[in-house]
This record gives sequence, C-alpha cells and structure tokens, in this order.
Amino acid sequence: MDSLTPARPDTRAALLKRYGAAAIPEVGPWNDTIAGLLAHRSVRGYKPDPVPPGTLETLVAAAQSAATSSNMQWTSVIAVTDPAKKKTLAEIAGNQKHIEQCPLYLCFVTDMARNVAIGRAEKTEFQVMPWLETFLVASIDVALAAQNAVVAAESLGLSTVYIGAMRNDPERVAKLLGLPPQCFTLFGLCVGYATEQAAGEVKPRLPQAAMLHHERYDASKAEALRQVHDGAMKEFSARNELQAGTWTQRVLNRLGPMASMNGRERLAAALAALGFTIK
Amino acid sequence: MDSLTPARPDTRAALLKRYGAAAIPEVGPWNDTIAGLLAHRSVRGYKPDPVPPGTLETLVAAAQSAATSSNMQWTSVIAVTDPAKKKTLAEIAGNQKHIEQCPLYLCFVTDMARNVAIGRAEKTEFQVMPWLETFLVASIDVALAAQNAVVAAESLGLSTVYIGAMRNDPERVAKLLGLPPQCFTLFGLCVGYATEQAAGEVKPRLPQAAMLHHERYDASKAEALRQVHDGAMKEFSARNELQAGTWTQRVLNRLGPMASMNGRERLAAALAALGFTIK
Repeated sequence: MDSLTPARPDTRAALLKRYGAAAIPEVGPWNDTIAGLLAHRSVRGYKPDPVPPGTLETLVAAAQSAATSSNMQWTSVIAVTDPAKKKTLAEIAGNQKHIEQCPLYLCFVTDMARNVAIGRAEKTEFQVMPWLETFLVASIDVALAAQNAVVAAESLGLSTVYIGAMRNDPERVAKLLGLPPQCFTLFGLCVGYATEQAAGEVKPRLPQAAMLHHERYDASKAEALRQVHDGAMKEFSARNELQAGTWTQRVLNRLGPMASMNGRERLAAALAALGFTIK
Repeated sequence: MDSLTPARPDTRAALLKRYGAAAIPEVGPWNDTIAGLLAHRSVRGYKPDPVPPGTLETLVAAAQSAATSSNMQWTSVIAVTDPAKKKTLAEIAGNQKHIEQCPLYLCFVTDMARNVAIGRAEKTEFQVMPWLETFLVASIDVALAAQNAVVAAESLGLSTVYIGAMRNDPERVAKLLGLPPQCFTLFGLCVGYATEQAAGEVKPRLPQAAMLHHERYDASKAEALRQVHDGAMKEFSARNELQAGTWTQRVLNRLGPMASMNGRERLAAALAALGFTIK
C-alpha cells in the first residue's frame, strides 16, 4: 500500500475482501457510501420479516432518480408480495427458494408499452421503436434504475439478489404479472433481511488491471491476472464449501454447455411473442 | 404527507425536486446515501480541474462491486484522459463538448473478448456465446457496474453524465480505443467537477404510480399521471429555458422521427461488424 491509500482502517479490509490479498488496488477517496458499495453481497436466504413501511416507495424513488436516456423513463416495477405469485415465480426461476422467502420481490420491466401508448394517444408514428438500439437503451435504463434500488436497499441494512432467471420463460412471467405487449421482465430482485447463514462473504472480483484500461484496451496481462483471480476464487470457494474452485472453472461451466442457458437461447423468439420488434 | 414520511427536513425537499409538488410519494426510511441518490443530476459542463489521485481506482472498485451475473464479469472500462482522444469521441457523439471538457472520460465496454479468450486457452467450445441472452446479460452487467461508479463519484462531490452517443458509430469508437473483436462501447461517462452554470437542478420524473405496480401491471391511471408529469416538466422547462415544454412533447420529439436516432438504427449491423453474433 502506498500514499494514495486513505487512512481509514476499513478501506484496506474492504479491498482485501473484494480483490484478495494479491490484487489490492491503490484507491484514493473513500466514504461511507463507497464502503457500502464495496460491501455488496448477493443474498439467497431471507428471514420472513417484512420490510418497514415506506421502504418500497424509498427504493422506487432511488430507482427513478438514476439517469434515464433522454428522460424517456422506460422502467416499470411490479412489486410482488403475494405468496402464491412468488411461488410461481420461484418455479419459473428453477426453484429459487429465496424468491418465495423474501418479503418483497421486485420485477424490473423494460416497459415500451407506456411510451407506445403516448404515440397512439397523440396520433404520432413512433419510428424509433422497432430497433435493437431502442430495446437496448430501454433495458440499460432499467438496469441503472435497479442498481440504485439495490444501493438504497443495502444502505438500509436490507439484502438483495438479482434474478436473471425471469428470462427462462418471459411469456409466463408476463402473463402472471398482467403485462401488456411490449413489456418484458428484464430481471427480478429479492429484497429482505438476510438470514445469518445466507449473509455470506464478499465475492472476489478480477484484479482491476484485468478490466481497467488506460486510453487503449490492453489484454497483455490478461492470462496472468486470470491466474491471480483463480487463486482468490479458489480460496473463497474452499472457505465457503463451493464446488467450482477457480474462476476459470466457473467460466467454463457457465459458458461451455448449452444446458447452462436454461432455455434462454429462446430470448429473441420470446421477445417477438411479447410484441417487440428488434431489428 | 402522512405518518410514513420521515422527519428529516431534507426528505420532503428532495422528493419535491424529484417529483414536483403534485406527486410527492410516501417514502419511509431515509439516510445520506439515499439523499445522494435522489439528488442525481446529469451534468454537461465541467471545470478543467483533474479528479484527485486514486479516484479512478475508487470508482472502478465500486463498479466491480456491483452484482455480476454468475460472476462472469463482462465489463471493461477504458479510462480516457488524452485530449485528442476525447476530442474525437466528442465529435463521434455529435460534438458534445462536455466529453472534451471533463478531466476523466470512462468508456464502459460490453467485453465478451476476455471470456472468449478463456475458452480458447482452455480448448473449450463456448456454446453460450452467440445469443441475444448473452449479449443482454453482459450489457446489464456493464450498466450495473457503471451505475455504482456514478453513485460513488457523486458521493465524492463529482458530477457525471452518461453518453449513449458512443453508439452513433460503434466501429469508430472501437478502433479509437483498440478494442478487440466482441468488445462494444455500450456508453461513455463524463466524470469531473460541474461548472456553476452546468450544475443544474434535479429533473422531475413520472409520479411513482405511473411506474410502480402492485402484484399486476396497471395502466388505468397512466393518462392522468402523464398529465401530472407534463405539468412538472413544463415548470422545470420554463425555469431552465428549455424548448420542449411538457414531457409528452419530449417523448414525441425523441421517439417520432428517425432523425433522432442519429444513425443508431445501424446498431445490429455495427455489432455484427464488431464480431458479435446475436441470435
């Protein structure tokens, strides 16, 4: 560590957890908000305790405060607390029990229907709608909003986990939530209080040098840095009794076989069925 | 306002700015991190002052701490400070002078090349790569990471603005940054200290009831809520001497004519040229 490293005693500890001992970056400024961001863990076990009154509205206010491209505001959120509905959503997601457990489940929706309706009401042809660009910018909007909700939730002592497996069967999710055409649940988000067992530890990430480039992309150290990360993940896995030891093994397991997609290779067809044109 | 509204004096002021007087939501828990999220403004004018040493590393540590689907870590960041390079990027973005002005410009890259290289090195076929799902999940990863960087930057008194216009000419951006195949600059981000003139005010958003749904999607009040938001945006526009008065007018201007895409209808072709298969 050098002069750039701030004096706060929690900084080094946070960086050690996030990167492992072999790759602690030379970070500068630091504060409580940043400490909260660094402490993120995805949590897959929740107490039954409900979230305090007004929490949903606080999280949504945070979500809506994220940047939105040209202020088009493409996001909708469906807040699900009904146990039967959460059970069905858990099934769709390959029996992820934390969807049933968490007191508040948020479906983050790429909502093109709301703006399409404005074109209809105002008798204006919206030439911008049927393009990959528009679907992408709308989905980026949704992701930025969701991450603000996550940051807000964690700042309140709540835990979260994103559920990409809503995309295992987008049509069934849409039907269950009563979505109109041109609405698509990009992902879900569990919100609640972590059980002690599930609170877990911070998961290591690639050394900064593997993903931060200066002026130009530089992959010259990628192989060496992957090995550093493999080491950090191997230790993490051993401590947490997880099967895949290294990061490399996880990448091979996840990106190798089609089976790991859980049917999501259907996404383009599912979006067409949901009324999107993405050309 | 009712009993759910917390006593902190800044809460009501923050909500008033974000939603306008006609749509203040009944938020509950509140803290400094949440106040920071609510205060977000996109800033398009920067002082020449550099960011403090170690700031880039702090922002990247925050970015990497966001959730990443299956820990695949699809994000790369190219930090650009070279004036000539920023000038070219500003041109690509339709002469957005703030890209030249800001001391630190971050290109957030959907980076499939890093993981593709692992498959090559480990002699494993990656069947999961050539699908819309994989491009989408990777781009969500990038957006979550970027939003954490924004939250961290703003918590340090810095300002930001996302630059979607990197997608006006993805191939030229890729060439300028030396990106390998299967890397795509999803968006840029200006980081720096706002000029007094550009600091601006918080931009209103749709009332919560327009985008927050309970258990099922409900558009029954959409028209009425759009009018509430039109009112808030009209007042905002008048205060800030902006042309399009209502939100509706902005939506019609942005989504109506093809010209507002600035060539981004080419995105699918550009991604193919950059080596992506998105089926």
